[in-house]
Amino acid sequence: MPEFRKDPLVGRWVVFAPERKQRPQEFGRLELPSTTKDAFAEGNERLTPPEVFAIRPAGLPANGPGWRVRVVPNRYPALRIEGTLDPEAVGFYDRMNGIGAHEVVIETPDSKKALEELPIEGVADVLTACKSRIADLMKDPRFRYLLVFKNVGPMAGASLSHAHSQLIAMPVTPLAVKEKLDSAKNYYDLKERSIFEDILHNELRTGERVVYQNHGFVVFCPFASRFPFELAIFPRRQSPDYHTADEHELVLLADAVKTALLRLNRALGKPDYNLILHTAPVRRPRKNYWTTIDADFRWHIEILPRLTGVAGLEFGTGFFINTTLPEEAAQFLRHMVNY
Amino acid sequence: MPEFRKDPLVGRWVVFAPERKQRPQEFGRLELPSTTKDAFAEGNERLTPPEVFAIRPAGLPANGPGWRVRVVPNRYPALRIEGTLDPEAVGFYDRMNGIGAHEVVIETPDSKKALEELPIEGVADVLTACKSRIADLMKDPRFRYLLVFKNVGPMAGASLSHAHSQLIAMPVTPLAVKEKLDSAKNYYDLKERSIFEDILHNELRTGERVVYQNHGFVVFCPFASRFPFELAIFPRRQSPDYHTADEHELVLLADAVKTALLRLNRALGKPDYNLILHTAPVRRPRKNYWTTIDADFRWHIEILPRLTGVAGLEFGTGFFINTTLPEEAAQFLRHMVNY
Repeated sequence: MPEFRKDPLVGRWVVFAPERKQRPQEFGRLELPSTTKDAFAEGNERLTPPEVFAIRPAGLPANGPGWRVRVVPNRYPALRIEGTLDPEAVGFYDRMNGIGAHEVVIETPDSKKALEELPIEGVADVLTACKSRIADLMKDPRFRYLLVFKNVGPMAGASLSHAHSQLIAMPVTPLAVKEKLDSAKNYYDLKERSIFEDILHNELRTGERVVYQNHGFVVFCPFASRFPFELAIFPRRQSPDYHTADEHELVLLADAVKTALLRLNRALGKPDYNLILHTAPVRRPRKNYWTTIDADFRWHIEILPRLTGVAGLEFGTGFFINTTLPEEAAQFLRHMVNY
Repeated sequence: MPEFRKDPLVGRWVVFAPERKQRPQEFGRLELPSTTKDAFAEGNERLTPPEVFAIRPAGLPANGPGWRVRVVPNRYPALRIEGTLDPEAVGFYDRMNGIGAHEVVIETPDSKKALEELPIEGVADVLTACKSRIADLMKDPRFRYLLVFKNVGPMAGASLSHAHSQLIAMPVTPLAVKEKLDSAKNYYDLKERSIFEDILHNELRTGERVVYQNHGFVVFCPFASRFPFELAIFPRRQSPDYHTADEHELVLLADAVKTALLRLNRALGKPDYNLILHTAPVRRPRKNYWTTIDADFRWHIEILPRLTGVAGLEFGTGFFINTTLPEEAAQFLRHMVNY
């Protein structure tokens, strides 16, 4: 059974998922271990747990071929869907059961295609699948926080090459997320404006870090990027919740994501990367710490190219050294054509 | 000129060091770029900037052979020693000049030897060099925080194989360090005991996560380890400041570090790793936020084996998934012989 353990000094919860451990060289992997067969390819649907969501033509049966996007529970989940948290003290320390959801969004039936190589409709299907799963998992009263992320390449912690994202639903809000929400709230209290709106306004006004924009989204290199060629994608419309994005917004988001990834590929030669979708924690009708985030927090996407290993300084202190100014990266990416 | 930029949302300072950028595949590296010649080897002293510290027999000239440990400024520093901070607003954002020190501790004249392969006296020399440099740099009134770290192997962000550590002196205390200090202070205020003492006491009482101990130090796998086989080394004697360790303590620390690294090597086959020395920020006589850390904070060492890439989840949320329970890792390491 996976478990959560709390670091008593920094208050950070860590998930222990010993069942995911394979051989020593696979320690720490977040992905399914690679097998000789591609379990995510069309025709191999029986090799995954039964699907929880799919986009396929009407009339075709579940767990068979013909799908465009498919969501399945992770066969080696970091968190388990069954059970209760049972938080308790263990001597000096705190633990609880590793309850949560851990799903895989298989982005295409094609073993060889990358997300950004799909047509806009294909990318939009993936974004729609994420929206649908988030909306569904939010209903589970045990879950407070949902996260979609995508690891591409070994430097980014991936071990499977078939295009996929992962979705995790957690019973706790991670400390770094809480701090981000607190910070956004403090800013709103002080200024009566959203910090996301202020950042967006500033970036559009100066333009020097903007890489791409369409009518729904702005892609830019953040002022204090941690990684060279780091990108942020902000929606123009205020909403804390990704699952409120409508069909048209998801098409525009697909356009922004595809453009961002294609340009990174051209600039850096298909770099390994992480993509992270930040959406607000689940708010319940009960009195809640985050009742104001409807105005002060905005869902957004981060893309972190992973060109080199992350060094001791960063893990020791949260302090990053970046060799590339975002203005230079943005200028380079701005002048690229998509294809 | 390097510069600090502050992320307006999370309050994190990032250092931009564009002079360190080489080719695209070297983006983000923290180390000196590798050359055909080993600039750190004995006889190549002219290939580094002039040394700021060395341990060599009396009578031998500086910047020549015969040394055991040598400290030099980083040829491609992330921070520059000359100048003033000049903090200022840039439109919506905050920046200041990248003032600080960035030095390299060359741990041995031998190109092929790893730190843990040195005799105890050799490891103690390295620890003494770090102490001496910290004590010296602390005197510079511009510096608030000093950090020693060691990156070994590409997964850990290293690009040079010659055994070395790095020392960075910074004009700001990183956010994660501040939070750790705050947390330690809050604990002390609540309990009137140091959290470090409580952790140490708890680990020694249960013993299940202890890997090794001598009369000065305890090596253990932390309860909420982020990485498989992560290790912490706590001194038994209370002190917030590494540079207060005396000669005997440094010999005992050398024994603990050497033992920890040799056992990791045997258990995991010479894994890449980061080693981080956490010492308290510099306290000045002036009224200061951290005046109480003499009792509530304790210097310590973290060793983070880097078996796989760090994935999107961790950078997105600070939330880690670990496949190895520290009790299992400790049991494995405890029953190993050193050589």
